[in-house]
Amino acid sequence: MPTEIERKFTAPADGPFTDVPAIPVEQGYLVRADGAHVRIRKSGGAHTLTVKKGRGLTRQEFEIDISTDDFDLLWPATEGARVTKTRRLVPLSDGRTACVDEFAAQLAGLVMVEVEFSTEDEARRFRPPAWFGTEVTEDVRYSNSVLVTAGRPVTDR
Amino acid sequence: MPTEIERKFTAPADGPFTDVPAIPVEQGYLVRADGAHVRIRKSGGAHTLTVKKGRGLTRQEFEIDISTDDFDLLWPATEGARVTKTRRLVPLSDGRTACVDEFAAQLAGLVMVEVEFSTEDEARRFRPPAWFGTEVTEDVRYSNSVLVTAGRPVTDR
Repeated sequence: MPTEIERKFTAPADGPFTDVPAIPVEQGYLVRADGAHVRIRKSGGAHTLTVKKGRGLTRQEFEIDISTDDFDLLWPATEGARVTKTRRLVPLSDGRTACVDEFAAQLAGLVMVEVEFSTEDEARRFRPPAWFGTEVTEDVRYSNSVLVTAGRPVTDR
Repeated sequence: MPTEIERKFTAPADGPFTDVPAIPVEQGYLVRADGAHVRIRKSGGAHTLTVKKGRGLTRQEFEIDISTDDFDLLWPATEGARVTKTRRLVPLSDGRTACVDEFAAQLAGLVMVEVEFSTEDEARRFRPPAWFGTEVTEDVRYSNSVLVTAGRPVTDR
């Protein structure tokens, strides 16, 4: 099973990444269930369909590329469950890349940063830079698939 | 929104279709939620990914073709939620086509027949042939996405 091992944190809007190019991302959820979802995403000319299963640090992830036409055909099925954001790929001093997502539309004001790892041990040993905010890896409220309808957690505003 | 208008019935194993060629169908559910799912299907050389939303007579349906490689990549994500059946396209005397599904594996013994319509009015006016069994259009227990884990309804055995 393909796994994704990822730690997630909140981030400040003025972190050390404002000069990194921001890639527009539009994504929508086809179906969301307890701890599983199927999502389509348009980002920098690429269109993908992704199945994610599980919660927290380690999840199963299955992803295929789809055509623009197929993306357009499926997009109406995501009505009411869409996220608009920009993504910045920010190099960290340890050689890793952080993905900084700045949300727009109904989630405007929310900024999050994610870092992927090859193993859970690597993930545990990672020391986040000082500009990273609160860790929310295990906080289901910060999953994009929950944020999309529940909105930004009240304690974070 | 693309809609699917369909009436469903149980059927006898020895209905007037046993000489119609049976096409093997394998399908698996990527994610199932309350009244919505995403499914992949392999049938007669074609591979499709389908999003269905809603229940009963009229549902929303969004379908794309996917490659064999993409089907194979996504298939592990359907573990525990797979249906094996054969499908027969059976001409009816009114010119319509009935889809007769004979289930295998954990659903062996179950046979169902579906007929699609262009409008709800047409669907209501349809008089099922005498060999059709009980209508189960509104009986959620007979949805493939429920059958796959709940098994054949006890009252039908």
